[in-house]
Amino acid sequence: MRAEDILKEYAEVVDKEMEKLFENRRYLLYDMMRYHLGWLDENLRKVEQYRGKRFRPTLCLLVYSSIAGVYDKALPAAVAIELIHNFSLIHDDIEDMDEERRHRPTVWKLFGIPHAINAGDGMHVLANIAALKLRERYVSSDKILDVLEILNNAVMNLCEGQFLDMSFQDRDTITMQEYMEMIYKKTASLIEASCKIGAILATDDEEIVNRFSSFGRNIGLAFQIVDDIIGIWGKEEKTGKPVASDIRNKKKSMPIVCVFESDRRDEIVEIYRKEKLSEEDIEKVLNILNELNILEVCKKEAEKFKKIALEELEKTGIKNEPIEKIKTLAEFLIEREY
Amino acid sequence: MRAEDILKEYAEVVDKEMEKLFENRRYLLYDMMRYHLGWLDENLRKVEQYRGKRFRPTLCLLVYSSIAGVYDKALPAAVAIELIHNFSLIHDDIEDMDEERRHRPTVWKLFGIPHAINAGDGMHVLANIAALKLRERYVSSDKILDVLEILNNAVMNLCEGQFLDMSFQDRDTITMQEYMEMIYKKTASLIEASCKIGAILATDDEEIVNRFSSFGRNIGLAFQIVDDIIGIWGKEEKTGKPVASDIRNKKKSMPIVCVFESDRRDEIVEIYRKEKLSEEDIEKVLNILNELNILEVCKKEAEKFKKIALEELEKTGIKNEPIEKIKTLAEFLIEREY
Repeated sequence: MRAEDILKEYAEVVDKEMEKLFENRRYLLYDMMRYHLGWLDENLRKVEQYRGKRFRPTLCLLVYSSIAGVYDKALPAAVAIELIHNFSLIHDDIEDMDEERRHRPTVWKLFGIPHAINAGDGMHVLANIAALKLRERYVSSDKILDVLEILNNAVMNLCEGQFLDMSFQDRDTITMQEYMEMIYKKTASLIEASCKIGAILATDDEEIVNRFSSFGRNIGLAFQIVDDIIGIWGKEEKTGKPVASDIRNKKKSMPIVCVFESDRRDEIVEIYRKEKLSEEDIEKVLNILNELNILEVCKKEAEKFKKIALEELEKTGIKNEPIEKIKTLAEFLIEREY
Repeated sequence: MRAEDILKEYAEVVDKEMEKLFENRRYLLYDMMRYHLGWLDENLRKVEQYRGKRFRPTLCLLVYSSIAGVYDKALPAAVAIELIHNFSLIHDDIEDMDEERRHRPTVWKLFGIPHAINAGDGMHVLANIAALKLRERYVSSDKILDVLEILNNAVMNLCEGQFLDMSFQDRDTITMQEYMEMIYKKTASLIEASCKIGAILATDDEEIVNRFSSFGRNIGLAFQIVDDIIGIWGKEEKTGKPVASDIRNKKKSMPIVCVFESDRRDEIVEIYRKEKLSEEDIEKVLNILNELNILEVCKKEAEKFKKIALEELEKTGIKNEPIEKIKTLAEFLIEREY
């Protein structure tokens, strides 16, 4: 089965459950959320077949069913995870002043900053309300509280990660350790939580839960590093963004942090101090990266985390179709073309 | 016992518990929250004795102890409520572009909008994490889930209320029904939840829980109407704001909504259509309000809700010191001078 087909199948299941949560919610506030989730277009008319990948909830459901056989009981938690991810996107887009997401205006661009802040808050609440629907699925109250703890600790990490990311913008350099802490919190933590929640809902076996958590954490780190690679070396026709877009935006992503840790540090610090980079500056940065062979360094890092992730999966000792699907997804997330 | 003394006593208890939640949280992100909560000054130095009233958590603790005798078990929930209130203030201040709160710069004014959005989000998560600490107080898991449901439904109401409030700004008039719906969601709902949570943690008696909820809802409505009165007729030396400040800001508060429902409607609509009101415009609005005797109308409305609230309290059949304190607080919240 192809990764795209797996994602399509689960995205439909997740969205169907998510739509239930929006039933009878009639304020325009909820239409802003529906717009962000890809259910409505800019004129608030229904969109068919426009959706995000939903890979976090898909992982949650697959982990659950790799242990428990079916996925129904985990659905409310999967929806909660996807809503957390999307609330944070709505707010990140304001904080980073991003005007487009997936080729459409961002929520703040369309409805203004005040409404976008509030719509993000609303989606944050809805995520918790979604998780509480586990009560309707005969999950024990203790387990539901465990899920809520994992979920909310992950959201706290998201906020800390976003805080670090924003703070890094005002600094000349950051260390690799600081960078790893940031991407763990900002990206890997919620993927880790998706897997951990799927596991904990299905079993009390701590070792299994820890293996799946570790799988999620490591695949999340690999995923972010690949994202960083694409942000610099991704082809325009694949990414929809200009070449070297992360350099253009002076992002301190992993390739740049690698330079900070090299003897070419001062050159890049000087360039990044400029208000706006010229084409010549961008060329210079790309040359430094090239001379230090940093694309390879980053690819190896991503491979390293992917390898750990897949080993953890192996060590669960579980062999079945859901596990195969998780492997396919893991490969897909890391092997994106650039 | 004076209301001020009751509030002081409970504010200290609430803040002590709240501070525990912030232990070992070292990022500047948390200092932004500490600043907002009044624990740090603008230079992030410790402040002694600067605090908000904390009346929502105080109500929660008093309701709990009116039934159960002590308040300890309800503390994590009380903290959660106060954090929800404050997260919403941080975001409301951005949405309304308010530069000052309690004579200090608002969080966004001091740290910028991106960090303020994120700090508000962080406080929102912390509220849920606080509520989950009920687990350490031997509260049954089922009860904790009930508390989380009440709390999160109230937060959903907050977002809906804020949405309505912002939407009203773009409209010529609103009806009294719409206005009441908005203030229920934006103000009364969280006060209702404070009382309901205090009650539900202490008893399974549905009638008692409903009486306390209704008390909170009605005292919340009265509280907001008094706030609206102060926003127009409050004296500068009491409010720290210019006379008729709500008119200056063209707020559609209850006194204005009363005019919308009168035969002077068109006059006020015309004035409120202006970009900025002159002193003469403000005088005209005050005259209309005066001629229609609207201060008295609003006072009567506030009295009406206060009366219902106190009757509900009476009907619980509970007579003890905490109930007396609740009454004192209710009078205090409504009888604020203006």
